[in-house]
Amino acid sequence: MAKKPSIPKGTRDFSPAEVAKRNYIIHTIKKHFETYGFQPIETPSFENYDTLMGKYGDEGDRLIFKILNSGDFISKVDDVTYSSKNSATLTPKISEKALRYDLTVPFARYVVMHQNEIDFPFKRYQIQPVWRADRPQKGRFREFYQCDADVVGANSLLQEVEFVQLYDAVFTDLGLEGATIKINNRKILSGIAEIIGAKHLLVDFTVALDKLDKIGEEKVKAEMLQKGISEAAIAKAQPLFDMSGTAAEQLEKLKAILADSEIGMLGVSELEEIIATVDLLGLQSAKLKLDVTLARGLNYYTGAIFEVAAPEGVKMGSIGGGGRYDDLTGIFGLKDVSGVGISFGLDRIYLVMEELGLFPDSLDTSLDVLCLNFGKKEAQAALQLVADLRRNGVRADLYPTDTKVQKQFKYADKRGVPYVILLGEEELNTNAFVVKEMKSGGHKAYAIDAVAKFAKDILN
Amino acid sequence: MAKKPSIPKGTRDFSPAEVAKRNYIIHTIKKHFETYGFQPIETPSFENYDTLMGKYGDEGDRLIFKILNSGDFISKVDDVTYSSKNSATLTPKISEKALRYDLTVPFARYVVMHQNEIDFPFKRYQIQPVWRADRPQKGRFREFYQCDADVVGANSLLQEVEFVQLYDAVFTDLGLEGATIKINNRKILSGIAEIIGAKHLLVDFTVALDKLDKIGEEKVKAEMLQKGISEAAIAKAQPLFDMSGTAAEQLEKLKAILADSEIGMLGVSELEEIIATVDLLGLQSAKLKLDVTLARGLNYYTGAIFEVAAPEGVKMGSIGGGGRYDDLTGIFGLKDVSGVGISFGLDRIYLVMEELGLFPDSLDTSLDVLCLNFGKKEAQAALQLVADLRRNGVRADLYPTDTKVQKQFKYADKRGVPYVILLGEEELNTNAFVVKEMKSGGHKAYAIDAVAKFAKDILN
Repeated sequence: MAKKPSIPKGTRDFSPAEVAKRNYIIHTIKKHFETYGFQPIETPSFENYDTLMGKYGDEGDRLIFKILNSGDFISKVDDVTYSSKNSATLTPKISEKALRYDLTVPFARYVVMHQNEIDFPFKRYQIQPVWRADRPQKGRFREFYQCDADVVGANSLLQEVEFVQLYDAVFTDLGLEGATIKINNRKILSGIAEIIGAKHLLVDFTVALDKLDKIGEEKVKAEMLQKGISEAAIAKAQPLFDMSGTAAEQLEKLKAILADSEIGMLGVSELEEIIATVDLLGLQSAKLKLDVTLARGLNYYTGAIFEVAAPEGVKMGSIGGGGRYDDLTGIFGLKDVSGVGISFGLDRIYLVMEELGLFPDSLDTSLDVLCLNFGKKEAQAALQLVADLRRNGVRADLYPTDTKVQKQFKYADKRGVPYVILLGEEELNTNAFVVKEMKSGGHKAYAIDAVAKFAKDILN
Repeated sequence: MAKKPSIPKGTRDFSPAEVAKRNYIIHTIKKHFETYGFQPIETPSFENYDTLMGKYGDEGDRLIFKILNSGDFISKVDDVTYSSKNSATLTPKISEKALRYDLTVPFARYVVMHQNEIDFPFKRYQIQPVWRADRPQKGRFREFYQCDADVVGANSLLQEVEFVQLYDAVFTDLGLEGATIKINNRKILSGIAEIIGAKHLLVDFTVALDKLDKIGEEKVKAEMLQKGISEAAIAKAQPLFDMSGTAAEQLEKLKAILADSEIGMLGVSELEEIIATVDLLGLQSAKLKLDVTLARGLNYYTGAIFEVAAPEGVKMGSIGGGGRYDDLTGIFGLKDVSGVGISFGLDRIYLVMEELGLFPDSLDTSLDVLCLNFGKKEAQAALQLVADLRRNGVRADLYPTDTKVQKQFKYADKRGVPYVILLGEEELNTNAFVVKEMKSGGHKAYAIDAVAKFAKDILN
């Protein structure tokens, strides 16, 4: 007796209806990536162990899926290592490859490896799955897609402006109106850390501040204290917990706080320029909002940072994020190449669109025409008709057997086919075919040589 | 000093130009899959270890990439197993998941798991990467895409007819004219094995026969002998080594050889029907050819089998293959569900198309318009122009910095941009922009509010 099959925890099968919806989002994102001049690349699903390890912190290292070496891998482990029976020391001896954890590190690796073939500035996009051995929960999976666009080799702040426009273009096109693009700048955070005398604790500071929305002011402060940031320093940072007003007003407050920090003031002026240019060009449906508590977890950001919140009223974490990193390729030996990029969270966008009912109805149709099967002779004529329809771009099919007509109609109904063709003996004799429109129940006859006309009728 | 980065053996990075070509093939295949009524599904990159192991023979088991369990995996290994230090017994204790080896077994698993949601007959397609720890060589990689279409739950031979038409439609559309679709039937091979009294050695017989093209008659016979098939049996099979003539003539010969084998005669009559129907409907550019030496390695085929050879003159293994399997889902406990399917070999099709120069030139263009950058004021106007172009569906970009015009033109040239826009001080003052067509060198001026007209001009 065969065991009932299952799939690994945190992974998913996608049915035709789900694939259609996912592809709708992916194609929309892709279309805008391309009109914005981004070019696609693809990298392997697994990278060398050393390429990935140590790039995402200890937690990241733990969450990376490692691939077991092939063949008699264990015979290559020395006895000392083996006898210690320790997972951490054994792993690098029996695994040389690991599954991609994100698209950014592989992209940095790609740029360094192919630097002589690339024309900089290089605008690339990449839409591929990544894998993390995280604990699965709602909206968090062990295999999921990332949709990233990055520019490397261009320092101009126009790039940041373009990414804000790009977010706006995609979300507007998806009908997801009212998304909020939150923006901040790591230099402002560095400046604040400098001012409060906790420069060496910037990472701890930003990681804690990032949680303000989720855990509230008191708990963020408690975490900062616990990480070794002094009470006096936290008090100096108090204005950050109380920011409000327009972007211009907030920037003025920041200028007052950061007057003595060169890097902080640089961050303020960068943000001023980005926000002013976006204002000048206008956005279609998204809002741009300065949020000085926005920190983002990843350590490689050095300039502007972004995070996108779903339209108000929808409970969902961020549906996109990104920022500028001045030295990403440095980890692979290529210095001074600045980059900036954003990511779209496919799975969360999917859930938000589902909740708001934003997927077009046309996605439900996977077949335009089903031709019924009335027996061998009729089926041969129907096959010819179906072949003609397909050559005219119609998604058409012949029911494979001459089972009961009722059963064939039921199949058409379940698949949501809008048109059913009847080509029985009578039609054969009169060189015609009859089309039944499933929704209205209406019939219409076409001459057998009018396939192109019928195709045109239903595709419009 | 950072180590020079590399990627794992047998894997590949794809540059924008390569992705464009690969996507061109994938989109063409997908388009025809859909006009033929197939629906897309996707399955996880990794499956449970038990789902995959034992489904592809011993060799397959060895070539499956296993994923190391996360966390302190080694502490869960009992001491007896650990102390034996044996890779084969240790593997299932430290690995619960493995990377997909093909798309067929995951599809069978999918059908069984989702049988209650599926409307049969179920026509599904799936285009996803698979992984094999094979020795890399020309055209063989450790990560590669499979493009599969299958129907399950339909016994009608019309399915086989459709797959021949589908191959023809795709290869014709790709411009790959003159492909040969070889067809045979496993029942004929079973009949032959029966007649020669080597029924229990059918697998060995077919695997050896499959090599006729590559190693020649003598070596195939030697292999058969070595596998225990008697000399007398091989002599009885001699007509198989000498088949020639039209399909009809070959089928007559087969009828004579197989008269005493019920299963063999069934295979002949199936082939007769398929070939006759294909002849009746006609093919656009491919040829259908009966090849009784065609066996295909996979054991689950039970009816028609297919293999596609590239047009004559191109040296390349098969660029597609498939067949009918009467009991694929049986391995997961769902009996009596017949299936038939075909696969397109993306990487080999790519190589053939490259060799024959069949990729359209338009794939080289990834950006329609580059707007030059003449400084801050001009750039702001250019950004607005570029935004308008993008909203009109034009792939447009502004050069990010106001570096030397020569350098900007060089970039446009390298990226193969057909149109460069000049929007300098003079143009700003006259509310115009000048378009340079890179190929001809000609210039044309447009009013700044004529963006839609310009977009229409160049997109047609």
